[in-house]
Parts: sequence; C-alpha cells; structure tokens
Amino acid sequence: MTDTVLTNAWILTVDETMTIHARGWLHISGDTIVALGDGAPPQVPNAEIVDMSGDIVMPGMVNTHCHMAMSLFRGLGEDVDDRLFRYMLPLERKFVSPEMVRAGTTLSALESIMGGVTSIADMYYFETEVGHVIDRAGMRGIVGQTLADFDAPDHKSFDAGFALVDELADTFADHARVTASIAPHAPYSTGPAIMERVAQWSDDHPGLPVQIHLAETEPEIAWAREKYGLSTVGVTARSGLLKPSTIAAHCLLIDDDDIAILAQSGVGVAHNARSNGKGGRGMARVEDMRKAGIAVGIATDGPMSGNTLDLFAQFGVVSIFAKILGHSRKPMPTKDVIRMATIEGAKVLGLDDRIGSLEAGKKADLIRISLAAPRLHPIYDPYSMLVFAAMPTDVCDVMVDGNWLMRDRQVLTLEPQKVLADALAVADKFRTEIAAIDAARQKE
Amino acid sequence: MTDTVLTNAWILTVDETMTIHARGWLHISGDTIVALGDGAPPQVPNAEIVDMSGDIVMPGMVNTHCHMAMSLFRGLGEDVDDRLFRYMLPLERKFVSPEMVRAGTTLSALESIMGGVTSIADMYYFETEVGHVIDRAGMRGIVGQTLADFDAPDHKSFDAGFALVDELADTFADHARVTASIAPHAPYSTGPAIMERVAQWSDDHPGLPVQIHLAETEPEIAWAREKYGLSTVGVTARSGLLKPSTIAAHCLLIDDDDIAILAQSGVGVAHNARSNGKGGRGMARVEDMRKAGIAVGIATDGPMSGNTLDLFAQFGVVSIFAKILGHSRKPMPTKDVIRMATIEGAKVLGLDDRIGSLEAGKKADLIRISLAAPRLHPIYDPYSMLVFAAMPTDVCDVMVDGNWLMRDRQVLTLEPQKVLADALAVADKFRTEIAAIDAARQKE
Repeated sequence: MTDTVLTNAWILTVDETMTIHARGWLHISGDTIVALGDGAPPQVPNAEIVDMSGDIVMPGMVNTHCHMAMSLFRGLGEDVDDRLFRYMLPLERKFVSPEMVRAGTTLSALESIMGGVTSIADMYYFETEVGHVIDRAGMRGIVGQTLADFDAPDHKSFDAGFALVDELADTFADHARVTASIAPHAPYSTGPAIMERVAQWSDDHPGLPVQIHLAETEPEIAWAREKYGLSTVGVTARSGLLKPSTIAAHCLLIDDDDIAILAQSGVGVAHNARSNGKGGRGMARVEDMRKAGIAVGIATDGPMSGNTLDLFAQFGVVSIFAKILGHSRKPMPTKDVIRMATIEGAKVLGLDDRIGSLEAGKKADLIRISLAAPRLHPIYDPYSMLVFAAMPTDVCDVMVDGNWLMRDRQVLTLEPQKVLADALAVADKFRTEIAAIDAARQKE
Repeated sequence: MTDTVLTNAWILTVDETMTIHARGWLHISGDTIVALGDGAPPQVPNAEIVDMSGDIVMPGMVNTHCHMAMSLFRGLGEDVDDRLFRYMLPLERKFVSPEMVRAGTTLSALESIMGGVTSIADMYYFETEVGHVIDRAGMRGIVGQTLADFDAPDHKSFDAGFALVDELADTFADHARVTASIAPHAPYSTGPAIMERVAQWSDDHPGLPVQIHLAETEPEIAWAREKYGLSTVGVTARSGLLKPSTIAAHCLLIDDDDIAILAQSGVGVAHNARSNGKGGRGMARVEDMRKAGIAVGIATDGPMSGNTLDLFAQFGVVSIFAKILGHSRKPMPTKDVIRMATIEGAKVLGLDDRIGSLEAGKKADLIRISLAAPRLHPIYDPYSMLVFAAMPTDVCDVMVDGNWLMRDRQVLTLEPQKVLADALAVADKFRTEIAAIDAARQKE
C-alpha cells in the first residue's frame, strides 16, 4: 500500500458543511483518503510527501453527460439550425467505427484530465471502446451503450443494441473505475415499449445506471403530447424508466408537474448549460429542480454541441442562467456551482458514496489548482475564483483512485502528441464529406 | 525603421470580406502593416523574419468597457444584490487612491495583454494614472475620467471633475496610443445639466470620446421615466450626449424607440454580456442593435463585475445570449463574434481607421494564437475554434504599434511577479474592512 501525504494545501473538501482547510494536509493510502485536516501533517512512515505550495486541492470534477468520441466533430455546423440532420447523422452513419470512437474518446479523455475532470458519464456507440479508453486513461466513467431507432452506427435493431449492452456489462463487471450503463437515446427515438424493456434490464442489473436525453427539444415535447397526451417526462415515467439510477440529460423543457415527477423518482439530472444555450433552446430551471430535491450535475454535452470537455467553461453560463431566470445576483451562489461540479455530480452518477468530496474513507479523486496566474488574484473567496476566473489550464495535478494522472500539467497516462496525431488522422478523412455538406448548404 | 515579416501564419484579416490567408505572410514596417498575403513572403532587406508555425494571426482584441483598477476588488460580493452600496462604494471611498489605481490597472494591463486584448476603453478615477500605466504597458487605450455626484474618490464637485478631465486631456494630447476621454458615470448620477456640459466639452475636444453607462439598471429607467417622462436613452439624447464619439456601455434595458435613437446618433455600444448576466439583469438586444446599424463591441466591464479581462470568457455568453433571444442557432454566428471583438470594437472606440483588422496601412496591432493545445482540434472553422474552444492562455504573442508586448507568453513590457506582488500588497489592506462588511451581512 502506497501512502501519500499532501501538505501545504488550501483544501476545499466540499463536504456537507463545505469545510475548508486553509493550510491543510491530506493523507492517502492506496486508493483511499484516510485522513485530512489543518495544521501540522501527521508523520506517516514511508509516505511520499507532496508539497502543494498553498495551491487549492479540491475533489476531481464530474462531467455528468458527454459523447466523448464526438470531439472529432468539434465545432461542425455551428450556427446551423438543422445541424443534426445535415451534419451529425450523415457523418455518424458514414464514419463512426470502433477506431473513430477510440481516437475521439482518447482525445476527449486527454482534454478532460487536463481540465480537472476525473469522472465522466458517456453515452455513444461502440461503447466498449469508450470503457477501454477510460480504463487506460485512469479516469472514472459511466459508459453507456446508446440504443436508438435511427439506423445507429453499431446496431440495426434494438435486439442487436441490447446484445451490445450485455457485452458491455460483461466486459466491465467488477471494474473498479468503469461502470457499464444502458443508454436509450431519448423517449421519441426509442418509444415506450423499448423504454419498458430498458427499465426491466435496469431492474435486472442493479448498480448499472440508465442514461437518456430527456425534455431537450420541442419536437420531443410535441411527440409526447400528440401521441400520448403527456409530457415527455410523463411518458418516460410511465415506462418505468425514471428511477434513482437514471441520469436524465437536459430536462430543459419541463413544467412544475414534470419537476414533481422527477423529484419523486429520485432521478439525477445532467445540466448542459452551454449546449442548451448554443442551440438557442433556453435555460433549464436548475434552481427549481434543486429546490425540489433533485440532484443536478454539470455537463459539457458532446464536443460537437459544447465544444470543450472542461467544466470551467460551463460555470459562468450555469451561474448566469440561474441569475437571469431569478432576476437577481442571489441564485446559484458560487459555492453551489462547485457543489454541482463535484458532490452533486457524483450523486447524479450514483457515486457519491465513493467520490465527490474530500473526506476520510472516500476514494482519492482530487485535483490541484495552481494559483500562479496573476488573473486569479486577489482571491477573497476561492469559490468565486474557481467559478468566474479559473480555467482548465490552471489545473496542474490530477489524481484518481490514488494514482496521479497528471503532474505539473504533464499527463502521465496518455501521450498527448500521439493522441492528437491519431485523432487528426481520423478526422482528416471527414473533410471531403464535410466540404460537400458545406457547399450544398451554401448553394441553397 | 524596423521591418518585420511574419511568415507561415494562418491570417484572419477580419477585413470587409473576412479574407483568410491560410499560409500567409505579413510585412510590418515601423508601427504599420505595409503588406500581407498568401504564398511566398516578399524579400525585405534587413527584416526580422518570424515564423508563426501555422498558428493563427489576427487583429488584437478590443475591450470596449472596463474599470481596470477594480481588479483589486475582483470577485467581491458575488451573489449579493446590494453589492454596489454594501461593498463597492464604501470600499472605493475608503481605498481608491493614485497608488491603488496604479496597482490595480497594472494588474489588469498584464492580464489584458496575456489574454490578447491590445486596446481597452477604461473609465475610473485618477485616470491620468491609468493613462500612464497603459502607456508603459505598450497597450492602446481610451482613458476616461469619471464624473459623478456620489462623493467620488477623486473629486468633490463636478467643477473639480472637469478640471481632472482637462488635466487628463493635456497630459495625453498627441499621444500615439493613449486618448483622453470624458466619462459621466451614468445619466442618473450626473443629470441632464452636467450631461449638457459634457456634450459641450466634447464638442470643444473633437477626437476625445465620451464614455457613459447607459440603460443598465431598473432604477435608472425609473428615474428617467418619473423625472422626465422619457427613457434614459431619451434623456441622454436630449442632453446632446449621444454622438458618434460616445461609447455607451450596456444599453441593456432598451426598447425599439431607444434602438432607433441610438442608431440615428451614431453612438457605439459596449456589450457587457457576463456582467449583465451575473447581475441577473438580462440579455442585451445586440442583434437588434447591430441590424439597426449600431456598432457593438464586446466588453468585460470591471473585474468586480466580470472578474476577468479577456474577451474569450465573453464569447460564449455573447453568442448564447443572441441564440437564446433568437430561439435558434443562427443569430450571432462565430464570425460576427470575432468581428465584434476586433473591427467593430475598434469602431466603437473611434479607432477603426487605424486598428481592428489586418490590412495594409493599418497599425500593427495583432496577436498570435497557438494551436498547440489538443482541446482546440480538429479545427474545421477557425472562428468556431476561437469563440467556443480557445482561451486566453492560447494567446502566445502580442504586438501593438509594431512592438512586441508578449512573445511565447512572456510579457516584455511589465514584470509579472512584481505586478502581482504590488497588487496584492495594496489589496491586503482591504481585507479587514471586507471581513467587517462580510460579518455585518452574515448577521442580518
């Protein structure tokens, strides 16, 4: 068992009372935090002592919804309303392969680590590849095999999709950091019958989360209303799919009744602020959901929608949306943003007994924020600094399960130059097709 | 006359047709761009050749509204609705001095340069100090002496304020990069009579801009309506203060009639997206103003309101606000965001004949964006990459008037460690007072 003692750290524990250790130490044994506190660090025989130089040490951040492989489509079709049908689906049908998923997911894992994200919930295709990438990168992940009716790249029928889910669950059974998940794409693209089958699968596989896009778009709302006389949340609830192990992404177009249903179900919500905003779709009622007792985490969405894989880029937007909706500075104080990015995100993923805060007995998933940049100073409140001034490039060290994934901004588990070269080699094959789509669009 | 030729650059000129030179070169002689193009660079005798390694070269960015010295109050009173009266005014009355202004403005100049901002419009107190800091930092700036009726830190009467403005104008007469400006705080805090006097001063000093906060808060709207039966834009227009040399910050709470008045006047608008959002105040109608022909630039506001001094942090919010207001992905395409950050911002400052685009005859104000970070790739559209993925830390080189202010992220005109130490030495004196304000607030 390796022991490590971090010293001279400004520790933001994000525990229940938001304890801060201003000159703190933290003792890690193996993969677990065994003790932490203020003042003189304990003498631990044979421990590695790492001086944090007064920098901030906080829980690793949790990205509650992503499609990591889509980094290879980053920034495509911005400013185009029918981007889904014009760019995304045609490109996915043509190019998504195990190799593409591996290359894109690895690029995203690299970026996630460099931005301080230690846990991520992903849903995409060939998801076993995603699990292997997250395993190798040393991150923690919920990997969800997508099920959908729209000619998905890796399954031509729901039966074939369920077979992929079973394979995924077998592959990562008992893995310490990678958890398999079943991911029906959305209510409208799977339908009540398949959602019921997913709910049954979920009952048969306790501990494996469900992931679904929910109440994200207006056509989805219209579909539920016209076909079932219900909200899309209502249709999903009736299918038995809203349960504590469910991660519902977006929950943007919801009313008070929907919030009550979501709260009652114990579902966790992934708030994709920038993605919703970039789509011109609106501002999710996050404060209302949280007041109703729903755990809401922060999410980047896929990099074709949200562009980047760090939560810092979300923080400002998460905060601003809440303040504009509440017409006041008070909603979503900076402390709450950091809670959402850590312990509340962990709760959404069903991992809050293991991660999300720095407490004795929890896994050692933590990050160090360098305070070297002049633009961070003066610091009157560390949460304000993190939410409104810090950037992913301020993250200097990252640890998951007691293992360093990054030290002094050098990623230890991946080779950045090779990761980028591999990703660009795959993406370069898309360019002819993309140019054709661009040209067709410009002709109209 | 020094000649420099930049080679192997991905040049975004931001000229009228948004010309891009994919393998471009750019020839600078003295402070001026003399030629640029694609392909083989010209042979210029004795020129320094600088290889840009395929990185992006674009116009330096323009921050159209700021209170630079307030970096020393960065992040204070977040989430507090009466922050202005509880924190800002008491702290300003007690602590604003020439030394404080010098230290805070220098910290902000450092951050601005490191974030790719080459021109800035500032309004604050002891503004002659601000001009000297901008001069020494090598930046370009509009420096506005604030006039206000609320016991300002550097003048106890409007007459004294006008004397400071005159002194400022004398000090920077004929300066190549620093332009004096008169800055009535806001319509409600100066009143029509003083606004008329400012308009007269402005007529007497052609080329020196007026800066004013306009239509930012609800009490301001109520003041104008109750006292004059007009909108605040209407009151200001009637005072003669809306003219092409006026920079109107915010223009948030405006209606169609106000937009028509603003457009007719030729005023430029500084859009403070994050500051407005953080205040819970709303989303300015930027697309409507631009469609009416009003030049709108991007602005950070002071770091107590907006926290950071780079425009990258604004880009996502500027874009998202427009898309949410338009309920579509189409409004505010990424190209337009970059235009606002450069040539349109330059127009707001009255400098578009000199800066804001890379064209022969313009001043050599430019920045280089490193493409080294994996998170920026793949790049299908450089504007999308700049708006939604790039960060201030990607800016590696900065030039103003043909002089390098930063190379390889080393600022050449300021000493970062000393700048930070000086700023913290001043800010540390505020902490007792801040703790008292915090404590009083928590008792309530």
